[in-house]
Amino acid sequence: MPSNKVAKTEKSPDPDMTAVTLTELLSRGNLRGNLFAEACPSREILKHVTSRWGVLLLVALLGGTHRFSDLRRKIGGVSEKMLAQTLQWLEADGFVLRVSYPVVPPHVEYSLTPLGNEVALRVRDLADWVEVKMPEILQARTEPKASARPNEGVTTHRLR
Amino acid sequence: MPSNKVAKTEKSPDPDMTAVTLTELLSRGNLRGNLFAEACPSREILKHVTSRWGVLLLVALLGGTHRFSDLRRKIGGVSEKMLAQTLQWLEADGFVLRVSYPVVPPHVEYSLTPLGNEVALRVRDLADWVEVKMPEILQARTEPKASARPNEGVTTHRLR
Repeated sequence: MPSNKVAKTEKSPDPDMTAVTLTELLSRGNLRGNLFAEACPSREILKHVTSRWGVLLLVALLGGTHRFSDLRRKIGGVSEKMLAQTLQWLEADGFVLRVSYPVVPPHVEYSLTPLGNEVALRVRDLADWVEVKMPEILQARTEPKASARPNEGVTTHRLR
Repeated sequence: MPSNKVAKTEKSPDPDMTAVTLTELLSRGNLRGNLFAEACPSREILKHVTSRWGVLLLVALLGGTHRFSDLRRKIGGVSEKMLAQTLQWLEADGFVLRVSYPVVPPHVEYSLTPLGNEVALRVRDLADWVEVKMPEILQARTEPKASARPNEGVTTHRLR
């Protein structure tokens, strides 16, 4: 299914859906994405905000406007290329605003749009949880596994 | 920094940290991960739960216990190999419980642990937001960009 089709609507399925453009679908309202559908464009958006650097970029920008070099310093291990690529994705999705001041030397600032702020808060919630629970998760890995279910004759073990 | 060192503690930095094992660090308590630090093990955990299939798997398992084939059917486009790999990651992190019943043919079920349920709720919150906002995001992409800031002489445009 090409990316200009939407995989799920809250209305009944349209038999002519393959002949409908995205703009037409959007104008009908009541649409939402469906991440379980392979060709739904929502997967691309999710990919950008959950990418390795996307997560950290969104969380960093919740702290306020940053210059490119500030972001690069803050986000350990990110390359110039990957930071630029991720900023470009998030700008195209409408999450990041890039403002370029016409001065010499060039001065460019990045900040969150209102939509970007909404998604960044959710991403930070997840990131915070991972940071806080990390010791517990690592500790559990080093302990011998106990069967979490008391069922007779049932074994829990590693996949494969 | 090797992966058995933790990048940030809430206590003051330990000058001998490089000589301390993870187990010793964990036993001191008050630790949390730091996703901005390149070598912090929290990055690996975040990677698993935000991976393309990790997100969908966690959301699917919030709906209850599933067999492998159920998961494969539900998650559009996932290969057998990637589903097995992602289940293995999430099981090793303590988020997914694999229960194998000793019957013929083999019967294996996957479910969320209490820790997995906690992380899955946060992942679903983000996934839901993306699904609901998708039409707005796609619509904005097709519209000409207006400068979001009224500053004189400031231009907003695409990166590169």
